[in-house]
Amino acid sequence: MSLQEVLSELDGFTVEVPSWAYGNSGTRFKVFTTPGTPRDPFEKIADAARVHALTGLAPRVSLHIPWDRVEDFGALSAHAEEHGVGIGAINSNLFQDDDYKLGSLTHADPAVRAKAVAHHLDCVAVMAETGSTDLKLWLPDGTNYAGQDSLRARQDRLAASLAEIYAALGPEQRLLLEYKFFEPYFYAMDVPDWGTALLHCQALGERAQVVLDTGHHAPGTNIEFIVMQLLRAGRLGAFDFNSRFYADDDLIVGSADPFQLFRIMVEIVAVDAHRPGSGVNFMLDQCHNIEDKIAGQVRSVLNVEQALAKALLVDTEALTAAQDAGDVIGAHDVLMDAFHTDVRGPLADRREARGLPRDPMAAYRASGYAAEIAAARVGGTQAGWL
Amino acid sequence: MSLQEVLSELDGFTVEVPSWAYGNSGTRFKVFTTPGTPRDPFEKIADAARVHALTGLAPRVSLHIPWDRVEDFGALSAHAEEHGVGIGAINSNLFQDDDYKLGSLTHADPAVRAKAVAHHLDCVAVMAETGSTDLKLWLPDGTNYAGQDSLRARQDRLAASLAEIYAALGPEQRLLLEYKFFEPYFYAMDVPDWGTALLHCQALGERAQVVLDTGHHAPGTNIEFIVMQLLRAGRLGAFDFNSRFYADDDLIVGSADPFQLFRIMVEIVAVDAHRPGSGVNFMLDQCHNIEDKIAGQVRSVLNVEQALAKALLVDTEALTAAQDAGDVIGAHDVLMDAFHTDVRGPLADRREARGLPRDPMAAYRASGYAAEIAAARVGGTQAGWL
Amino acid sequence: MSLQEVLSELDGFTVEVPSWAYGNSGTRFKVFTTPGTPRDPFEKIADAARVHALTGLAPRVSLHIPWDRVEDFGALSAHAEEHGVGIGAINSNLFQDDDYKLGSLTHADPAVRAKAVAHHLDCVAVMAETGSTDLKLWLPDGTNYAGQDSLRARQDRLAASLAEIYAALGPEQRLLLEYKFFEPYFYAMDVPDWGTALLHCQALGERAQVVLDTGHHAPGTNIEFIVMQLLRAGRLGAFDFNSRFYADDDLIVGSADPFQLFRIMVEIVAVDAHRPGSGVNFMLDQCHNIEDKIAGQVRSVLNVEQALAKALLVDTEALTAAQDAGDVIGAHDVLMDAFHTDVRGPLADRREARGLPRDPMAAYRASGYAAEIAAARVGGTQAGWL
Amino acid sequence: MSLQEVLSELDGFTVEVPSWAYGNSGTRFKVFTTPGTPRDPFEKIADAARVHALTGLAPRVSLHIPWDRVEDFGALSAHAEEHGVGIGAINSNLFQDDDYKLGSLTHADPAVRAKAVAHHLDCVAVMAETGSTDLKLWLPDGTNYAGQDSLRARQDRLAASLAEIYAALGPEQRLLLEYKFFEPYFYAMDVPDWGTALLHCQALGERAQVVLDTGHHAPGTNIEFIVMQLLRAGRLGAFDFNSRFYADDDLIVGSADPFQLFRIMVEIVAVDAHRPGSGVNFMLDQCHNIEDKIAGQVRSVLNVEQALAKALLVDTEALTAAQDAGDVIGAHDVLMDAFHTDVRGPLADRREARGLPRDPMAAYRASGYAAEIAAARVGGTQAGWL
Repeated sequence: MSLQEVLSELDGFTVEVPSWAYGNSGTRFKVFTTPGTPRDPFEKIADAARVHALTGLAPRVSLHIPWDRVEDFGALSAHAEEHGVGIGAINSNLFQDDDYKLGSLTHADPAVRAKAVAHHLDCVAVMAETGSTDLKLWLPDGTNYAGQDSLRARQDRLAASLAEIYAALGPEQRLLLEYKFFEPYFYAMDVPDWGTALLHCQALGERAQVVLDTGHHAPGTNIEFIVMQLLRAGRLGAFDFNSRFYADDDLIVGSADPFQLFRIMVEIVAVDAHRPGSGVNFMLDQCHNIEDKIAGQVRSVLNVEQALAKALLVDTEALTAAQDAGDVIGAHDVLMDAFHTDVRGPLADRREARGLPRDPMAAYRASGYAAEIAAARVGGTQAGWL
Repeated sequence: MSLQEVLSELDGFTVEVPSWAYGNSGTRFKVFTTPGTPRDPFEKIADAARVHALTGLAPRVSLHIPWDRVEDFGALSAHAEEHGVGIGAINSNLFQDDDYKLGSLTHADPAVRAKAVAHHLDCVAVMAETGSTDLKLWLPDGTNYAGQDSLRARQDRLAASLAEIYAALGPEQRLLLEYKFFEPYFYAMDVPDWGTALLHCQALGERAQVVLDTGHHAPGTNIEFIVMQLLRAGRLGAFDFNSRFYADDDLIVGSADPFQLFRIMVEIVAVDAHRPGSGVNFMLDQCHNIEDKIAGQVRSVLNVEQALAKALLVDTEALTAAQDAGDVIGAHDVLMDAFHTDVRGPLADRREARGLPRDPMAAYRASGYAAEIAAARVGGTQAGWL
Repeated sequence: MSLQEVLSELDGFTVEVPSWAYGNSGTRFKVFTTPGTPRDPFEKIADAARVHALTGLAPRVSLHIPWDRVEDFGALSAHAEEHGVGIGAINSNLFQDDDYKLGSLTHADPAVRAKAVAHHLDCVAVMAETGSTDLKLWLPDGTNYAGQDSLRARQDRLAASLAEIYAALGPEQRLLLEYKFFEPYFYAMDVPDWGTALLHCQALGERAQVVLDTGHHAPGTNIEFIVMQLLRAGRLGAFDFNSRFYADDDLIVGSADPFQLFRIMVEIVAVDAHRPGSGVNFMLDQCHNIEDKIAGQVRSVLNVEQALAKALLVDTEALTAAQDAGDVIGAHDVLMDAFHTDVRGPLADRREARGLPRDPMAAYRASGYAAEIAAARVGGTQAGWL
Repeated sequence: MSLQEVLSELDGFTVEVPSWAYGNSGTRFKVFTTPGTPRDPFEKIADAARVHALTGLAPRVSLHIPWDRVEDFGALSAHAEEHGVGIGAINSNLFQDDDYKLGSLTHADPAVRAKAVAHHLDCVAVMAETGSTDLKLWLPDGTNYAGQDSLRARQDRLAASLAEIYAALGPEQRLLLEYKFFEPYFYAMDVPDWGTALLHCQALGERAQVVLDTGHHAPGTNIEFIVMQLLRAGRLGAFDFNSRFYADDDLIVGSADPFQLFRIMVEIVAVDAHRPGSGVNFMLDQCHNIEDKIAGQVRSVLNVEQALAKALLVDTEALTAAQDAGDVIGAHDVLMDAFHTDVRGPLADRREARGLPRDPMAAYRASGYAAEIAAARVGGTQAGWL
């Protein structure tokens, strides 16, 4: 693909940003705060909109319920629209209620399960109010000790709970089910891998799709293989992008292994899944524990775009020829040629041509926005995970 | 379950041993040889029969084609029968032909794929001659470098190849498909995880089942969870038991983490899958690189039996009560009570009552069999992986 | 060693419990609370004393500063003594001050480093007041992004900071330096492995020793090897015992891999390091996120004692004979014989003979203590990590 | 550093290539052969010289004894010189003798240890004949089963064996000791980590240095941290470069994680260790199981050079300023700027200016050398690991 074609392929590509990335986050050891952190969903959306204004890449914001619960979601949607962005997926929360200590949708007690299901019906109501089509469900349930509960019974309960939730969705709405290897439980997670997520989605129906969070795998897992496999099975609903070295580190996507991000985008491009209408929602799910949050989001969406541009640059004809010829190094080199190409200049040119800053990071620093919100957002309680 | 009930539950339980465990094996660095190593399938079966004679646990021997190809499989079956054992699963080999350097059932060249498919039709013919009902297929295919080949195209070719093989099976025969995380390829294996194996089995039909090799997972993977999940999906066809600390170490099952083996058997017992007729074939797949091979096999089948006995000992009533009460430590302790119980005495008593040695390891050492075969098996070429 | 000798070897063996295990803990997602959780160090010590009363194994309590700061440490020591226990190691805290966002003893800003050093001088003062001889320092410092800071400069600053702290210790006091693979930082920890801890201890002097937390290693790490190596180098100062499946899960020691705990104790016993005066402080460092905290501690110290008893049971003469003969399976079997032996009965007998409950877990449940503290400890703020 | 300065810093930089990379290698499952594979050390050196002729980067060849034993090492040296290269490190072999099944320098039997020590004295003799100054010792010893041997006794024997070897070295000669996490043994390697290697080097003396093989670590290990730490301790003697996804995959360096290779070179550059005289020997240790071997080596040395050039490009002034200011993303971005820069053009220009091919990979393909050696090297036994 020529550079010009590559750049035009980027036109419809967008990244959805999470409202919670603008709030405080941390580890179990400490949550550091920063001046200017949003106090409510309106301020989070204002920050997210700034990311879009700087990059042209991030027109949607995921909400998290109950963190982003407001009295009037219509007002929130309007606020978003005014700021140039829209509401994206609705994320449920199954990890912060005292009742969920031993499970939520999998809990042995039917009353707890009913409560967890009801929470999702609330989320579906929010979807109606915001026009959101994606209900994203990460199941944090699991156990810490062998024997603590029946692994199998929990699957059965989960299947029944999910069926109730799925039944509440409209025909244009999807259930996005996310798996995670470990944390917050350490012996067994109830949806630990893509195979488990897939089995549940298969049981539910076609509008149940799998979410791949790039930080939710065992060490050494080939993530682009799973991307390919879920696409092949027609079940890749969304990404939660981030970076990791060890566990679910939730670092800026592309910061730990930019080559892996590129390889993932190569599998995306192979079936045109980067194009609007592919059904794959490219989302971030990150924690800016120690770095500036807005800058961190800007850097993240730029990293995704850069990886996509490089993936589009791969000379697929030469690649296929080398592959068919069994030329191992030759085929690998075709891929690496694209990866080693510096696309930052053309991407800056493209931004400029679209009326965006050539260097969004510098533009953000120069904008004074950080100082502005630090001065304005005094008092109140900063938003965070808890 | 009372100890008496536990012991009676063991009656139908068997472990299938692999013919190749009696031959030489090693690492890429060195294959050490030992006096007395079998030179042909007849001698392997004689050794395997000795394991059964000592333990009463191992009445079947898996064959590997072409390693165990003989002119007259009827004679081999008769030889086995004379020695008190039978022929079990037929294992194909897709990793030792020069044509398979870049793949076998997934190869870009249709001629190579056809050759690999034809090899399985040969295996099906062997099944007819030996009465075997299980065709076990471990796909060693994969790639070493990103870009080397299309991950997706390889899946498509694999699906087509598997369909041809599956079509050749009789109505009483099964295809057992084994996944592996890595090795002998290091960038991407073509069937790296249970999810991929499951998707292929689903596409093939009900007699396609997954093989779980306990050494074929990413670090930290909860294997008993996968056992439960495959059982729940009706797709657990067989185990390849062994132990690992790091990779596919192929050590004696139960030697690296006896508690894990116990937890696996707990999931088996939960649905009575240890009983004959469950459809789960409990097989060993091990390499005795430095230890005595026959002793290693005796130790292995004893370890599996011990883990099963402990799993049967779990006080399921107390366990369920503690689980339902949300008593985390209480439930865990019920499980641990069974694990900490020393069942070696009762198992020895049971062996004695069945006319078997109380201590099969000591009986083997005392038997002089090792010296006998070392003296007898002089000359010829020792059997091995290559 | 005869069972009688084994039991007598247990006499001087003790486990130190951490005050913070009795407070609330959790993950970054949620800290669940429980009725009866201590509100202050006095109540924590009361709970810890209960563990000792039930087991006879846990006569010392580690303190954590500032969590356990009280106005009058003499009063706290007296309170401990009244309850039958004493004060153990003093643990510093370098992860909860806003100034430490980018580092403490390694921070680029000398003022922050000075503050962190001064905190340790405070801890040394507490040691004087409590009679504690061990200053335990876990360095949580690290970076999240490549380039964020100079890895090398941080080592240099750390070395200088540690030298100041070490200089403040009295001749009978030790600095115990703990390493950790990852968390709370995800690109590079500043003391990530035993090699780094050892280099710093060597630079400091003989009273600087390494702390091995069983949850602070890369996947697959052979921990008993490190135990052996640090003992051989004369630098194993202490354990922080717990269990893990994935990361620093901080589960009940012995719950995830009882065989590993046994192997660790085998290395301990090999050089009599279980005996008082060996200089190895056997401590717990655990989080009882979802289980009863006191019961969790009771279970933990019992698990350590059980592993030690089994390690003492190893027939070392037979083991050495098999090892010298190159009898791989024979030597392994000698070890496994000890592991498979059920020592719970003799340990219960021993407890009974010492005036302790045969079954401390049952005795704790029967005691009504949980209900008692739940009723008594109403109001106030429950102690926790934060 | 300006691009011009960067390019001039490359002038003295060299990579040492291993003779064995030109022979056949494989996995335990299969060693694939290729036409043209060298049959003896002379042909290996001819191939290695071709890599140097194409790249100007690889003027030395490591030998492996006994694989590269010849009657007249003077003739081999002269042959190398004629081809424009020299002899580098001498590598010993402790993994292919039947006597070493249970250990070599650590073996319980003094006769086996003496044999292994004597082999190193032979290697020292080869060093005298070839002018080599580096004796590289990778200890493959280890155990497969807990209890198989005493971990501690093996350390003691190893220390004594190493002392004998070290004593045989001349004042200008070094002992380079390499550690490895696992393989070919699976329970415990006797030198599994850099801490163990360091302790032995410290005990031996200043000319004992550690070898860091990039494939010999636990999953997730931060390798550049170890590079920094060994440099800081004055003990980094050499690299064995390669790439890995899972275990010791021995893939082309830079193919699995080019960003990691860059980060390693950043630590090298920080103390000018890329310059001649630093004492760090940059070696490859790879296996070209399925790809063209010579092309694989060319690609490898180019990848190392590219990573070094990028590391030199880092704007250290800006980096330090951002680090000192606590600007997390800013500092990270400075590093990433260098990584994202495409240096292939300037490196090609530099090659051209030095009379080398702009594109060594294409030049190799165009040279017809592969066909030439395939035609010439008919008959005889291809060199390989075994």
